Amino acid sequence: MTAIRPAQPGQTLAEIDTPALVIDLDAFERNIATLTKSLVGRSVRVRAHAKTHKCPEIALRQIAAGAVGVCCQKVSEAEAMVEGGVGDVLVSNEVVGAQKLARLARLAKRARIGICVDDPAQVAALGDAVAAEGAQIDVYVEIDVGARRCGVAPGEPALALARKIVATPGLHFMGLQAYQGSAQHVRTMADRRAKIDAAIEAARSTRALIVANGIACPIVTGAGSGSFMFEAASGVYDELQPGSYIFMDADYARNEWAPPLPRFEHSLFVLATVMSRPVPERIVVDAGLKASSIDSGLPTVWNRPGLEFTRASDEHGVIEAKPGTLAPALGEKLLLVPGHCDPTVNLYDWYVCVRGGMQIDSSGGKVEALWPITARGALT
Amino acid sequence: MTAIRPAQPGQTLAEIDTPALVIDLDAFERNIATLTKSLVGRSVRVRAHAKTHKCPEIALRQIAAGAVGVCCQKVSEAEAMVEGGVGDVLVSNEVVGAQKLARLARLAKRARIGICVDDPAQVAALGDAVAAEGAQIDVYVEIDVGARRCGVAPGEPALALARKIVATPGLHFMGLQAYQGSAQHVRTMADRRAKIDAAIEAARSTRALIVANGIACPIVTGAGSGSFMFEAASGVYDELQPGSYIFMDADYARNEWAPPLPRFEHSLFVLATVMSRPVPERIVVDAGLKASSIDSGLPTVWNRPGLEFTRASDEHGVIEAKPGTLAPALGEKLLLVPGHCDPTVNLYDWYVCVRGGMQIDSSGGKVEALWPITARGALT
Repeated sequence: MTAIRPAQPGQTLAEIDTPALVIDLDAFERNIATLTKSLVGRSVRVRAHAKTHKCPEIALRQIAAGAVGVCCQKVSEAEAMVEGGVGDVLVSNEVVGAQKLARLARLAKRARIGICVDDPAQVAALGDAVAAEGAQIDVYVEIDVGARRCGVAPGEPALALARKIVATPGLHFMGLQAYQGSAQHVRTMADRRAKIDAAIEAARSTRALIVANGIACPIVTGAGSGSFMFEAASGVYDELQPGSYIFMDADYARNEWAPPLPRFEHSLFVLATVMSRPVPERIVVDAGLKASSIDSGLPTVWNRPGLEFTRASDEHGVIEAKPGTLAPALGEKLLLVPGHCDPTVNLYDWYVCVRGGMQIDSSGGKVEALWPITARGALT
Repeated sequence: MTAIRPAQPGQTLAEIDTPALVIDLDAFERNIATLTKSLVGRSVRVRAHAKTHKCPEIALRQIAAGAVGVCCQKVSEAEAMVEGGVGDVLVSNEVVGAQKLARLARLAKRARIGICVDDPAQVAALGDAVAAEGAQIDVYVEIDVGARRCGVAPGEPALALARKIVATPGLHFMGLQAYQGSAQHVRTMADRRAKIDAAIEAARSTRALIVANGIACPIVTGAGSGSFMFEAASGVYDELQPGSYIFMDADYARNEWAPPLPRFEHSLFVLATVMSRPVPERIVVDAGLKASSIDSGLPTVWNRPGLEFTRASDEHGVIEAKPGTLAPALGEKLLLVPGHCDPTVNLYDWYVCVRGGMQIDSSGGKVEALWPITARGALT
């Protein structure tokens, strides 16, 4: 990562060079508090997903707010988290390949590490890697609860894998990874709940089968920001893995939000500058698809009614002004809400953390901190 | 950027950990040679676009093959190129904001630098920045030749800007930036040619107007990998800016290619590993949208008929095997052709450069070099 910091403490938003990835610290902290409050009285724990933020500074704040640790998707992300002081990491994903498994086993001697499996060959390779390092590791069987991505089918295939884990020295069978990722952005509450109900039933019956066969299954883990209160109320899930709740991107904002799910606030923004205004109704900003990932839709323009982000090329964002809208001037700065927070964060080396409001003038907040995104680009 | 190298010289593709961004050096060098050969006998020069690769190692090879220098889209990219030894850089884009203009002016004291403008206020600010540093800079007026992004309208507005540039100390009016970006991926040759013909006419008439008003207009620059032979034959364009020709992504491959345009070869790949195979017809690789940008379509699977990449999430790629296809095994490696090379490159810190063929077994090539992507994440 680059050591050059993109801003200085004390600067206003107007003074920050662009594009920059900005956190509204007040909203970010309210989001963390909202999650904690939502779960008061529930016997579930939170294991926040660090693939969203890739930043130990944030992980440590989530843990301070009650999370037991974090999830990661990659061994290299987990390494960055442990390096940053996190003591308990679940790689909520399959890890395949001798190089990665050796690194994972070494990491498991420095921190509590969990890993998911969905294939007997993977269990064997993991057992070999752990034995070679003299390590111990928590292992979860991933079951496919409807997302049709990784994971064995619920029921007997999961039991067979649990048996193999139990029989392998160094591996501790901890339970089930049961994440319904494809449900998170289902727009209506009713449709989302229906998908999660199916996931809950798959997890419940699979755990019951494993327990009935004499194997303890202490943890069912899963859930995301778009559904976690359903899993929390299920009596089946023990651990929740929300990630995006801290930032709340434009795609999540298109969901229907109603109780029991709290509505989180946008706290992550791309600060951009108007670099061209060839005609009054067309404004071009210096933030394109290398500054804000468009895989889940274009960014939206924050608090500027009548301005619509309509097109992104590599380094340009085209914004159209509706008739009657006061179009921003050349050099003016705008805040964009990314379409999808996780891959957008992965484009930056630093968060610019602002406290005191997001007005882009002297009444707005100031830079309080710069947090390095140490797991940016952590792919292996 | 991370100092940890993702591979070692001498390794085979099978030995490289994944995901990794791999260059087939043989195909890459053939692409560079193909461009050079295509322009034999034409009085146009090449200024290769470095936004594609963000790597001085590649820029120096393009210059060695005849390019006069490179284009960049951002000041920070230009800084990385100059730092890497490139002596002539055109920022083929507008630059707005005092911080960036000061950096650009400082850079113009270390190398020959060009910049585009499309607004009188930008010319004034550039003049101030250049004067403050005692620098000199080449300036091009960007005209909108059909892409509806940046650029003034052809004709009188361009002449007015040229006059302002000529009147500003330290600024050298060099000509017109006339890039028809939206034509590059128009699928049929005929439709693409029609769009470029309109761009050529806009550039021709605008230059004629400027010259008729007593202002020299030495360079018309523009063109991309999808159209450059049309501009080369126009008698209007003096300089071509192709970028993607070195790599040739999956989206460009969907274009119709016919003479006079040469068809380039795929030379950029994402090496991925099968991390899960829950059912025989569904394979999950460890390369999702954080490993291969999907803004211009999903990646394709290289040289494996019957395998289709159908879905990407952050860190997963789902590949479906058509009936009768031999599906790859858990742990097997596959090569993906990125949908769009530029934003995919921007996800990595290193190219792993392989020579001797892309077979993923002992008959294939070996890692010859690792090239750092020093302008990765260069957004400002």
